[in-house]
Amino acid sequence: MTARPVPPGVERQALAGVVSLPEFHDLARAVVDRAALDYIDGGAWSEVSLAENEAAWLRYRLRPRVLVDVSRIDPSTTMLGTAAAMPVAIAPMAAHGLAHADGELATARAAAAAGVPFTLSTVSTRSMEAVAEAAPDGIRWFQLYAQAEPGRSRSLVERAVAAGYRAIVLTVDLPVLGYRERDRRNAFELAGTFGNLAGRPEPAGADEPDEEIFDARLAHLTWDDVATIRGWSSLPLVLKGILTAEDARLAVEHGADAIVVSNHGARQLDRVAAPIDVLEDVAAAVPAGTELWVDGGVRRGLDIAIARALGARGVLVGRPILWALAAGGQAGVERALAILREEFELALALLGTPTPGAITRGHVAR
Amino acid sequence: MTARPVPPGVERQALAGVVSLPEFHDLARAVVDRAALDYIDGGAWSEVSLAENEAAWLRYRLRPRVLVDVSRIDPSTTMLGTAAAMPVAIAPMAAHGLAHADGELATARAAAAAGVPFTLSTVSTRSMEAVAEAAPDGIRWFQLYAQAEPGRSRSLVERAVAAGYRAIVLTVDLPVLGYRERDRRNAFELAGTFGNLAGRPEPAGADEPDEEIFDARLAHLTWDDVATIRGWSSLPLVLKGILTAEDARLAVEHGADAIVVSNHGARQLDRVAAPIDVLEDVAAAVPAGTELWVDGGVRRGLDIAIARALGARGVLVGRPILWALAAGGQAGVERALAILREEFELALALLGTPTPGAITRGHVAR
Amino acid sequence: MTARPVPPGVERQALAGVVSLPEFHDLARAVVDRAALDYIDGGAWSEVSLAENEAAWLRYRLRPRVLVDVSRIDPSTTMLGTAAAMPVAIAPMAAHGLAHADGELATARAAAAAGVPFTLSTVSTRSMEAVAEAAPDGIRWFQLYAQAEPGRSRSLVERAVAAGYRAIVLTVDLPVLGYRERDRRNAFELAGTFGNLAGRPEPAGADEPDEEIFDARLAHLTWDDVATIRGWSSLPLVLKGILTAEDARLAVEHGADAIVVSNHGARQLDRVAAPIDVLEDVAAAVPAGTELWVDGGVRRGLDIAIARALGARGVLVGRPILWALAAGGQAGVERALAILREEFELALALLGTPTPGAITRGHVAR
Amino acid sequence: MTARPVPPGVERQALAGVVSLPEFHDLARAVVDRAALDYIDGGAWSEVSLAENEAAWLRYRLRPRVLVDVSRIDPSTTMLGTAAAMPVAIAPMAAHGLAHADGELATARAAAAAGVPFTLSTVSTRSMEAVAEAAPDGIRWFQLYAQAEPGRSRSLVERAVAAGYRAIVLTVDLPVLGYRERDRRNAFELAGTFGNLAGRPEPAGADEPDEEIFDARLAHLTWDDVATIRGWSSLPLVLKGILTAEDARLAVEHGADAIVVSNHGARQLDRVAAPIDVLEDVAAAVPAGTELWVDGGVRRGLDIAIARALGARGVLVGRPILWALAAGGQAGVERALAILREEFELALALLGTPTPGAITRGHVAR
Repeated sequence: MTARPVPPGVERQALAGVVSLPEFHDLARAVVDRAALDYIDGGAWSEVSLAENEAAWLRYRLRPRVLVDVSRIDPSTTMLGTAAAMPVAIAPMAAHGLAHADGELATARAAAAAGVPFTLSTVSTRSMEAVAEAAPDGIRWFQLYAQAEPGRSRSLVERAVAAGYRAIVLTVDLPVLGYRERDRRNAFELAGTFGNLAGRPEPAGADEPDEEIFDARLAHLTWDDVATIRGWSSLPLVLKGILTAEDARLAVEHGADAIVVSNHGARQLDRVAAPIDVLEDVAAAVPAGTELWVDGGVRRGLDIAIARALGARGVLVGRPILWALAAGGQAGVERALAILREEFELALALLGTPTPGAITRGHVAR
Repeated sequence: MTARPVPPGVERQALAGVVSLPEFHDLARAVVDRAALDYIDGGAWSEVSLAENEAAWLRYRLRPRVLVDVSRIDPSTTMLGTAAAMPVAIAPMAAHGLAHADGELATARAAAAAGVPFTLSTVSTRSMEAVAEAAPDGIRWFQLYAQAEPGRSRSLVERAVAAGYRAIVLTVDLPVLGYRERDRRNAFELAGTFGNLAGRPEPAGADEPDEEIFDARLAHLTWDDVATIRGWSSLPLVLKGILTAEDARLAVEHGADAIVVSNHGARQLDRVAAPIDVLEDVAAAVPAGTELWVDGGVRRGLDIAIARALGARGVLVGRPILWALAAGGQAGVERALAILREEFELALALLGTPTPGAITRGHVAR
Repeated sequence: MTARPVPPGVERQALAGVVSLPEFHDLARAVVDRAALDYIDGGAWSEVSLAENEAAWLRYRLRPRVLVDVSRIDPSTTMLGTAAAMPVAIAPMAAHGLAHADGELATARAAAAAGVPFTLSTVSTRSMEAVAEAAPDGIRWFQLYAQAEPGRSRSLVERAVAAGYRAIVLTVDLPVLGYRERDRRNAFELAGTFGNLAGRPEPAGADEPDEEIFDARLAHLTWDDVATIRGWSSLPLVLKGILTAEDARLAVEHGADAIVVSNHGARQLDRVAAPIDVLEDVAAAVPAGTELWVDGGVRRGLDIAIARALGARGVLVGRPILWALAAGGQAGVERALAILREEFELALALLGTPTPGAITRGHVAR
Repeated sequence: MTARPVPPGVERQALAGVVSLPEFHDLARAVVDRAALDYIDGGAWSEVSLAENEAAWLRYRLRPRVLVDVSRIDPSTTMLGTAAAMPVAIAPMAAHGLAHADGELATARAAAAAGVPFTLSTVSTRSMEAVAEAAPDGIRWFQLYAQAEPGRSRSLVERAVAAGYRAIVLTVDLPVLGYRERDRRNAFELAGTFGNLAGRPEPAGADEPDEEIFDARLAHLTWDDVATIRGWSSLPLVLKGILTAEDARLAVEHGADAIVVSNHGARQLDRVAAPIDVLEDVAAAVPAGTELWVDGGVRRGLDIAIARALGARGVLVGRPILWALAAGGQAGVERALAILREEFELALALLGTPTPGAITRGHVAR
């Protein structure tokens, strides 16, 4: 992973001129290397699901109710029992250093400032301890890619506990890496220093996640391993990467505390459903009260309202955060989160639902 | 609100060359400031509903009946018991002064000449009294944005009664302003003199509707307030901005005399249904005889026929009127209404329905 | 109607290079005045149905059956009891003189050579007698626009009988002219000499059909008039311009011998169904054996097979014939019909249906 | 058939840079004559089905299951009882010499190297004996176009037996040649030497399949002939070109050992369903265990998974193989098959199905 020098970014004035998350992409393009941006932006195979992830949200229709008292809008919620300023968390993404020299330190600080959870990737540029130090009061979750040797995975979990992370988000949809054509064309390899894996010898020309991370042992990760991983700490265990009602049921049976309905940003298998399109089926399959989160193509505060109506506790937002990080470091991410918050607050007022909890299935039609 | 000097417009000859309402947009572009035109044209967020409002009408299929006697076509109807030359009224829109120096005087005169109702916005450029004087015999309705102080709202209603307005059209879908990206990008603020609010100190840099209009109190407007507002006059009370069967039922229960099925020209919440697409559901929810009007994307006389078939008494037409106003002042609006009327008359003849009342549900398929 | 001098057209060699009907449009564009071509090509209003007429055919899916004996393909059929070389007739269209100096003489000769019926419009460039003389052995039908004075209509019918026309095709979907924007923009008026109306004083600047033809009396044409017109001759009476099951039933009740399911080439009411899309509904509404023909957007021999499968006896083809006429006079139309025939024969072989009569509902899916 | 000299192709390095089958088309364009490439690429009529063949695959949605043990991925299967390295065979295609001077020798060698069946066309450039000698250990099938004289067909079958071909793939959807507009526009005729027909006098300017091959007698090929052809050898008989449940049932009744659900690459009848879209209907119509293969638009390893889920034993891949052959001869085809294999293996891992047999109907949704 080459931590490239990133220009100082656009000044705060430019950030203030941004009015929607997709615009950060233009700004990112000016500062991020094309191959790296392709890595961030790209999906698997012919990117059918990548396009679908964004398009799916636009097909739902909100059903606003009028003349409801919306004088006091409160977008806050809890996720895994912890208060969050709105039903949004930052999705785990590899190597924020590709977007900005501050890497995850900036993203985590912005999340803390905005009061939303931040998920640190196993393959982050900065170590979990450094991120904890940068954002000590923020809600931080740790995303785990199971390692070839179980001992290493356990060590990562124990370090996360020690550093004050509040949940383990176990990725379950990456037994192998998806067929990412952009990276293959660009001969792009995510190489360099991974903060959490320091001290481990880096193989030359390591792929992402590097060869050590996804070796034969990882392919063995099965439902039986979930109980083992759960036993390594008392933190809530979140399974990320489920797209079917069947697997959601199994996740609950195996003790998952929450599920992220996700197709890994369309980077793993192509031609899978947009997560929002299967959310309702998944919700119907799990016991009431099971926390479901959804990601994939979240770009607007309106998406949050749709996700809530269809059964999600909240959404995870990914690529736009990296674009905003590239565009302005911590300030960029803060601006992105401020836009999402303003959009969501307006949506709550215009839907006639002063709080996320007031949104019902009847507020959305297909 | 800057009442900008507007060129004399295109001459009558050019107006006569216009054969459809969308063409007025090209003419308007030549005379209206881009940011002002963006304000007129724009929708909320990513404008999904803005496009949908126009597209929805095109998905319905007319079912013409032949060999019916259509020798005497009569497009007239009544709206709220008052005769109208056709089932069309001019929708309330802010600040006609943006489009033409004559502002609402010209629009109201054209509506009167064409025999269709004109709805004056609370935030009009010209005062309701000046408009009444300009078009004394026209059917005029007054659109009410509830004011922060109830006394001010009441005063507006009482002035409307005194000036001969025949209905109060209460907007119920603007507890806050929608997220209008064009205006945010253009840093456009609707500022200047609002004719109806004269004598009230204008805050510097006031937003539209200005800060006084949409303060915290307004957010409190609820169903309970409807009865209060109704009590301020004996005029019919129309609720504008309802998109669900549930709210339509509530509107009737709270004494509304008519309902405008509307998404506020897609300027408030995005990703809501096109009004025409929910009209039938709404009609099924209210007692037979409840007057329903529909707006959003009306561009053609054929739309009027579709609206009637699906349960509306008539349509409100918005943006094209402002484009026509920009293009030719009163003469422009007259031309626009003449086109609509000719189109509607031909539609009546070709549908085999010599009057609006002859149109049935069976004349439209989806 | 200005009978403009038309260049000699493209030579036979160029015609032989044409392999599909749509290609004739390019050739026509080279020789026909733009406003006249717009008149030929154009539809009503925003031309939603014009596009739909072509697109609808492409949505059906043929279900070919294999290993059927198709060694002897015979595309012939009967229409109104008369043998036709294939289930295709030339639709009535005004003023072929716009496309080629030979006008309807060339078209009728080509139809006769190909063994398909030719329908002469009331408002043809050449008179019905001249056409009869040019193509004495061809199957000729006469299309009737009812005239203001019934005596004139009757006279037209009686002349058609005398000149050997074998059916009266009464147009029922033109109580008024549709809203044709191209013609309005071009200020195009179909003026000049109409062969069938010679001797009648031509009003200056007459519209098409001219003012005498479509006056108030015509608007009175109702189901009662059908019996009257039927009584004027012993020829079969075909009603053209029906789009609903309800009107098809009425047509049969009023003694129609055949029905053309048609939207008048999308030139009358816009946003009506493509005729092929309502054919099956219409077929279900009339007694078995009622002859149904369909037109609108026919471009390919495959369309003929689809029409047969859904209940039509045959198709009428319109605009492509005028394009071919413009491109090469009689030879152009012959080439167009030869292409249709070859396409249809191949379709029969590949569908596993050696004759039109072998095609069943099961050979098409939606 | 003109065996044109083909440039040496792109070097192996360029081939290694190809990451998806569609990219071979760009490379082929650089070396193949435009008319020949049009012959390879083109479909019948307006190519509605050609586009549909590719688009259809993209509409299915995979339903990945997680935390399944996918440590040992095995893409192999059997087709007609013979082991194949993956559920893929090379479709019969005429005259590989158009793409590369080595013709079918190269394609067959690449198939053998990859462990997948190769289908040799009756109208191949190279003779079946030469191909057998080039790829003695490969799985080879022989595609039969029934000849005008039954004796010739029988002779072809007997030669195939002698040369070690393991199945007869009888094409049943070519009683006549489809209406291929590109070839008609290009005046393209497949002429030259057909390896299997050597010693037979070649008519000048022979069409493809040449006039001798598809004469009147061929049009007589019916279900009765299937039993006769079956009796000529003990090889399994595969019927290729069936698109309906009805014909699939008949095929089984007439003793077919396998069926290729196919629309002949959209080169015969247009506006037929994409084969993948009728596969499930066909599967429901035949006894469990009947081997169904599907072709048409296969471009990705994901397609193989979809085909298996919907009831196919395997897929046939066509045009991309010729593009790859043009691009790099045997090495090009090997690269194409390697890509398909890698894609399919990743799909198996990401679907949670370590073998083709583990894929169920539940792994795909529409």
